[in-house]
Amino acid sequence: MTDFAATKAMFDLPEGVIYLDGNSLGPLPKSAGARVQRMLTDEWGQMLITGWNKAGWMALPTALGDRIGRLIGAEPGSVVTGDTLSIKVYQAVASALDLNPDRKVVLSDNGNFPSDLYMADGLLRSLGDAYELRVVDPEAVAGAITEEVAVLLLTEVDYRSGRMHDMKALTELAHANGVVTVWDLAHSAGAIPVDLSGCNADFAVGCTYKYLNGGPGAPAFIYVAPRLAERTRPALSGWLGHEAPFAFDLDYRPGSGIERMRVGTPPIIQMTALSAAMDIWDLAVMTDVRAKSIELTELFIERVEATCPDLQLASPRDPQQRGSQISFRFKEGYAAMQALIARGVIGDFRAPDIMRFGFTPLYIDECDIERAVGIMADIMQNRLWDTPEYRIRQRVT
Amino acid sequence: MTDFAATKAMFDLPEGVIYLDGNSLGPLPKSAGARVQRMLTDEWGQMLITGWNKAGWMALPTALGDRIGRLIGAEPGSVVTGDTLSIKVYQAVASALDLNPDRKVVLSDNGNFPSDLYMADGLLRSLGDAYELRVVDPEAVAGAITEEVAVLLLTEVDYRSGRMHDMKALTELAHANGVVTVWDLAHSAGAIPVDLSGCNADFAVGCTYKYLNGGPGAPAFIYVAPRLAERTRPALSGWLGHEAPFAFDLDYRPGSGIERMRVGTPPIIQMTALSAAMDIWDLAVMTDVRAKSIELTELFIERVEATCPDLQLASPRDPQQRGSQISFRFKEGYAAMQALIARGVIGDFRAPDIMRFGFTPLYIDECDIERAVGIMADIMQNRLWDTPEYRIRQRVT
Repeated sequence: MTDFAATKAMFDLPEGVIYLDGNSLGPLPKSAGARVQRMLTDEWGQMLITGWNKAGWMALPTALGDRIGRLIGAEPGSVVTGDTLSIKVYQAVASALDLNPDRKVVLSDNGNFPSDLYMADGLLRSLGDAYELRVVDPEAVAGAITEEVAVLLLTEVDYRSGRMHDMKALTELAHANGVVTVWDLAHSAGAIPVDLSGCNADFAVGCTYKYLNGGPGAPAFIYVAPRLAERTRPALSGWLGHEAPFAFDLDYRPGSGIERMRVGTPPIIQMTALSAAMDIWDLAVMTDVRAKSIELTELFIERVEATCPDLQLASPRDPQQRGSQISFRFKEGYAAMQALIARGVIGDFRAPDIMRFGFTPLYIDECDIERAVGIMADIMQNRLWDTPEYRIRQRVT
Repeated sequence: MTDFAATKAMFDLPEGVIYLDGNSLGPLPKSAGARVQRMLTDEWGQMLITGWNKAGWMALPTALGDRIGRLIGAEPGSVVTGDTLSIKVYQAVASALDLNPDRKVVLSDNGNFPSDLYMADGLLRSLGDAYELRVVDPEAVAGAITEEVAVLLLTEVDYRSGRMHDMKALTELAHANGVVTVWDLAHSAGAIPVDLSGCNADFAVGCTYKYLNGGPGAPAFIYVAPRLAERTRPALSGWLGHEAPFAFDLDYRPGSGIERMRVGTPPIIQMTALSAAMDIWDLAVMTDVRAKSIELTELFIERVEATCPDLQLASPRDPQQRGSQISFRFKEGYAAMQALIARGVIGDFRAPDIMRFGFTPLYIDECDIERAVGIMADIMQNRLWDTPEYRIRQRVT
């Protein structure tokens, strides 16, 4: 059993704050400061260039990949970290297209995170007019999987509502139609159990600064199914994906397996902070995290609906149909969220009217939920959001 | 005048080490540790998601870009940091090709850093058989600039020999032939004065972990000439390059100017370490750095040639023709470099026979050079490199 009291004690959370935005940026692991300090002083400072070997920096992208892999049902040696999620989406879609060269359609849905669509669009524009990015409603995806489609690009958990796609069923349907799949796990990794291997997924990508708590701008990850890894031609063919980077050959030869999905020099300071976060994840079992997450979200919905009748649930009511977040619609959601934040309850707002709350059992418990809903009820019942100050929109991530 | 004694005191260099490998990975600025610690604890830890605005994280990529821009003759607002150099090469070449749609040839030279060629090759392969990466000898570049060429992709300073291309003359010749230029400044930024604006350069890219001392895996940068910025269609069209990232529109609309070259979420911890390094650079004048670098390299060549006759100069003898590094050829260069490193003189080795030394006036002075050459002379004159231990090749960056 995962000891959630123990994991909660491993995070540095500000006094008086109930943090329900770990689906946007996870909090600071207490050990990250000392760990990064040691890396700076003892590794970069003392080892200098030799840190690449002596301190194991060069192996960090795959070592971290394997630790993340355990949480998403990936085989050892099938995940590597690096770059940003947008770049990894590009790399995955380009590689997937390359495996299906006779088809020109990338299928996605309008519940996907916009950057995934932007990156796919940028890629397809560069490939020419024959290519098409086809974007349908989330409910229409299954019906749109045809033999015309080269690549299915989906985010498993909708970033606004938390609605989940059925990865196993859609992957099966895709394969039956000769379609290669790319799954974005931004709101899945560390949020829900994922079984890439069991779902027979082809490519998957994700970020590590949300549920995985790697810190602002922490590196992304990419998964390639072992059965495809040696056939994949990486579109972003950088030197650290080369078979022999330090031979400095003029010709590119892809490295073995997942190594070829590496591109440039990895961000070692970020990866060190991520390592501190993964130390906590190493203590967690995803089925425990999921069970606890469902308890927390069920409690939250029940209490909010009982005390804040103006808020309308925007997430699926069935916990099996949603990830680890709950969204409510409210016309003045922006102002209401500002009022909540001012009182220490941090969630976020997504246009046009979504108030979004993330549930992260590693550091959020029932008491937090009760306190948060108490504050929410006060704000909603007394219209405390209705001030000019809270109505002014600012740029918020 | 730049006070090099003062800047030297701002770096943490290990006792007994003479570090002549700052062209590969710069050393740790003394202030980086506390600075990163503060960012972790006070910003990430306390501000959590609100750090993106409150702590100015979202503006860091362009703020750092402007500080780097001063060192490379770039107009304010024309440089942005992010990603890795390989990714920025891809982005620049793809954008440059897009500005020259009727031509299909990217011209480069075999003195370019291999990853630049790999990335260009990967891009062109994805665009189809009509495209060609044409790689000539460095001396043949000028003659190969024809009206068939779409993009000229060159690294200004050769990573092995330090030989420099004439950026101004080649850019002029390129423009006279309708060719768009991409300059890689990996071994230029912080090494030599660069005048992108004065050279009328189109695109430039570079990294910040070498002469700029940003730390292992520090972000790259990209420059787009202001006259081109609004016409550039970024191939890697990520959400943070969008006109309104937080509107979460489904369609991509490029942001204004250099902002559109941003892609994904920026690595804030790395950027904080880079900020510490840029605090030191803010005290430096590039013409002073260049004058001092020439003094150091001239002294080094003179003393090595006087004491180590087995070493053959591989860098241009004329200081105006080379960057801030000196390379010597020696058949047993790998073993000799291992012997030097064991004695605290850190340079590096590049196959097949190049012993490479970087000169970085911010923290290397004449006394360091005299001491380094003393040790070198001892090793060479007494064949101290000739041991089985030093002859075993390991992977070294």
